Amino acid sequence: MEEIRETINNINLKFAEAFKRGDAAAVAALYTSDARLLPPEAPMMSGTEAIKAFWQGAMNLGIKEATLESIDVESSGDGLACEIGKFTLNIETPGGEHVAQTGKYIVLWKNDAGVWKLRADIWNTNAPA
Amino acid sequence: MEEIRETINNINLKFAEAFKRGDAAAVAALYTSDARLLPPEAPMMSGTEAIKAFWQGAMNLGIKEATLESIDVESSGDGLACEIGKFTLNIETPGGEHVAQTGKYIVLWKNDAGVWKLRADIWNTNAPA
Repeated sequence: MEEIRETINNINLKFAEAFKRGDAAAVAALYTSDARLLPPEAPMMSGTEAIKAFWQGAMNLGIKEATLESIDVESSGDGLACEIGKFTLNIETPGGEHVAQTGKYIVLWKNDAGVWKLRADIWNTNAPA
Repeated sequence: MEEIRETINNINLKFAEAFKRGDAAAVAALYTSDARLLPPEAPMMSGTEAIKAFWQGAMNLGIKEATLESIDVESSGDGLACEIGKFTLNIETPGGEHVAQTGKYIVLWKNDAGVWKLRADIWNTNAPA
């Protein structure tokens, strides 16, 4: 259990690092190839290409950083885990101002041939945008 | 696995029935006592009283029906399951008009002393409200 938590924390750091350098392909590679993404105010989507395009679009819209904080992980240790967490986005507005947006998420994690990957990812914000 | 899917579908029907009759206490009773609710545009909350108050507030705001459609359940059959689904809300506006709002959710389910209950619940809408 402790090992899964640590693994998830490490992958969340990789997510944030890839995001910060604007590497949508590296972000998408952290998901399983059949992963589902459930973004706010958009339809459910799935698959690496759709997920990469979504995060590329978010980066293009000014989301510069996505910081993830895992607060609860439930797992039976058999290849599935469910994580509840909080996020902070650093968004650059068209005017060049930086604003923080906070929210929360649930990620279903799957051990995919020895590598833990995001199988499903949903989030929402704490306050209206 | 098939049994868990059927159980979840049945509880989702109970959720919708309790919602339709405006019974927030019955909705809240479907969650574990320490469940986390992660509603859009609101902070994370937890516990039966907070969850009951949240759903009572949603009913008071005009949400008349919440229909749930399970589309994917992953479980190891050991007391935890993760469900991905879609919902439709039937909302009565202050002017008396009825509008439908669609969205998607992830629920972490836990077998709580023999009864499957919602342990964590997050959702968001497909389009801006």
